[in-house]
Amino acid sequence: MLKFEEENIDTPTLIVDQRVCQRNIQRMVKKAEDHHVHLRPHFKTHQSAVVGGWYKAAGIRSITVSSLDMATYFSQHGWDDITVAFSLNMREMDKVNNLAAKISLNILVESTAHIGALEKALVFPVGVFVKIDTGYHRTGIEAGDIERINQLANTLITVDKVRFKGFLAHAGHSYQASSREEILAIHEDTRSKMVKLKSYFNDLYPDLIISIGDTPSMSLAENFQGVDEIRPGNFIYYDLAQKGIGSCQWEDIAVVVACPIVAQHKERGEIIIYGGAVHFSKDSLKDSHGHNYFGRVVTMGVEGWGQPLPDCYVKSLSQEHGIVKISPTFWENFQVGDLMYIVPVHSCLTVDVIPAMITFEGQEIDTMKALALNRHYEDIKE
Amino acid sequence: MLKFEEENIDTPTLIVDQRVCQRNIQRMVKKAEDHHVHLRPHFKTHQSAVVGGWYKAAGIRSITVSSLDMATYFSQHGWDDITVAFSLNMREMDKVNNLAAKISLNILVESTAHIGALEKALVFPVGVFVKIDTGYHRTGIEAGDIERINQLANTLITVDKVRFKGFLAHAGHSYQASSREEILAIHEDTRSKMVKLKSYFNDLYPDLIISIGDTPSMSLAENFQGVDEIRPGNFIYYDLAQKGIGSCQWEDIAVVVACPIVAQHKERGEIIIYGGAVHFSKDSLKDSHGHNYFGRVVTMGVEGWGQPLPDCYVKSLSQEHGIVKISPTFWENFQVGDLMYIVPVHSCLTVDVIPAMITFEGQEIDTMKALALNRHYEDIKE
Repeated sequence: MLKFEEENIDTPTLIVDQRVCQRNIQRMVKKAEDHHVHLRPHFKTHQSAVVGGWYKAAGIRSITVSSLDMATYFSQHGWDDITVAFSLNMREMDKVNNLAAKISLNILVESTAHIGALEKALVFPVGVFVKIDTGYHRTGIEAGDIERINQLANTLITVDKVRFKGFLAHAGHSYQASSREEILAIHEDTRSKMVKLKSYFNDLYPDLIISIGDTPSMSLAENFQGVDEIRPGNFIYYDLAQKGIGSCQWEDIAVVVACPIVAQHKERGEIIIYGGAVHFSKDSLKDSHGHNYFGRVVTMGVEGWGQPLPDCYVKSLSQEHGIVKISPTFWENFQVGDLMYIVPVHSCLTVDVIPAMITFEGQEIDTMKALALNRHYEDIKE
Repeated sequence: MLKFEEENIDTPTLIVDQRVCQRNIQRMVKKAEDHHVHLRPHFKTHQSAVVGGWYKAAGIRSITVSSLDMATYFSQHGWDDITVAFSLNMREMDKVNNLAAKISLNILVESTAHIGALEKALVFPVGVFVKIDTGYHRTGIEAGDIERINQLANTLITVDKVRFKGFLAHAGHSYQASSREEILAIHEDTRSKMVKLKSYFNDLYPDLIISIGDTPSMSLAENFQGVDEIRPGNFIYYDLAQKGIGSCQWEDIAVVVACPIVAQHKERGEIIIYGGAVHFSKDSLKDSHGHNYFGRVVTMGVEGWGQPLPDCYVKSLSQEHGIVKISPTFWENFQVGDLMYIVPVHSCLTVDVIPAMITFEGQEIDTMKALALNRHYEDIKE
């Protein structure tokens, strides 16, 4: 017998295996301890006060988030040391001040415009990192551009209420890597660029911190020399994308989506599920034949789900539907009205869009968004 | 001066031009009248009671939705004639009965399993369509499979509380078309298949209805001979995808997303906006060079937004960020802290994920999800 009640699931529902999450947390906590780096996990992956509690139980006291709204949510759930790892949105200075009044808040800057906004609006002390670009080319000043970094740092320290904390980078290009070797090369490149920066600025700013933290690098790397803080997030759930690039084992994936089967088309070998872009988002991977897929099919057992069924995968997603290719071998396993269990490609985006989440034990999980949506759905279900 | 207050926008916000929506509604209403077909618009595009009101003002009384939860939401906002255009999810029979007790509800079946579920659980009368596949190959019985369709119809009419309404198809493959001609060919193929079905079953079931309804076909087609009902949805907002395949003009697109600019990188010609996969979802289009893009940049004016700026487009989306390529010609138009206006690729998915929506006049728009999320964000903003 399953620990959660299958018959209570009537719409697409994310199932989180808490034991796997706790194992993933423990592994990262130990890694951080072994390498004497501070672990400040990214909470955008789960966006949940409940899951945050599992981190707290493992001794975690400081966290990373991706928006000021998310920082507000977690500050209201007892977290009082938060880094918003997103270049400052100058239109939200009120939120910065509201948070800084109550908790230890860190934000990111990368331009004089940002510093101008801080100078103008800051009322309470805020920790500030300069965002560094080590090769992802999204935000940040290029790691080699010492002149600009120096200029910015020197302006920054003159601003009242600003506490210059150090340099922060996100090597997000590791998510596009195609092997463990490539991930490790990206990590080494990021680490060495950041360490170089630290040694350059060490005399001027002896207390500055180097913070890095993508899940692929943090999962695989063993060299953290010179690094002060790591901020991985996805590792608590992992997903098909992480498995694909080699940053986790199959057994480390902690989430699966239960989807009602609404139709079967044997002549095409396809099953149609209630579960679409509004439940999974639309990230996809390519199989060895170059075909896109949006999830893999697993079978649910008493102790959790198994390996993915060979030649069974989500072929396409429309708004509410998924089309699942099923190999003839497994055709008889599925009936209209049953649940089908799908491992998602990108757990962070799935968590963000899906309204219903439970643990493997059947406990409902609120997230920043699902909390609101669940309550709302309860209301409309009367 | 703009009609909405730019300074009140601090996070990614969808702006709906009500006048364009009303023009789009009027055009489709007139088309339906001219061709003597019943217009039952799909409300999954906007998911909003406010926008539903604009339809009501145009005389619309019956609607289509994509889930039983959405049907419940709209039934609570005064809509009492609703088709759930989604093959029956047998796990939600309670919701079917709750709705059928109060409103005129239509649902879809395509297998004997569905009919078995109706037989077992139905308490109140429900209209039932047989879902037909005219080439999209998602759900439905193939239009040419007269034997199976006949079998299903004959079983269906024996079930107590079932009112057999007719045949319903969604030619969703028109969204993948690459020209107006291709869309029209798909429409003609679907129409002729459905009309053939109607004439085949006419003697047995003289009152049956033929219902079709993808936005590309409904926007372009002029031949509705034999069709009883149309169910387009996306046409109220349209988007880049629809413009791309030729089902609308630029002036017909009614939605744009306002995104705060958080960073600029002139050396790469890139601007970073607060606005990512959790605001736009991840549908993309390909430009003439084969590059993916996730939105186009426009300038906001007093009367609405203009044509897309040449060589300015959203190049990639991560969870919360977008990277926007900006042509050197327009580089000086944008500053960190400003808003950038982005026309989305797929309006339905954007509406589904984005929490904040206003009209061009600044009125807040609740949707089924945004209602819950907005209230929640208001709570956490204290």
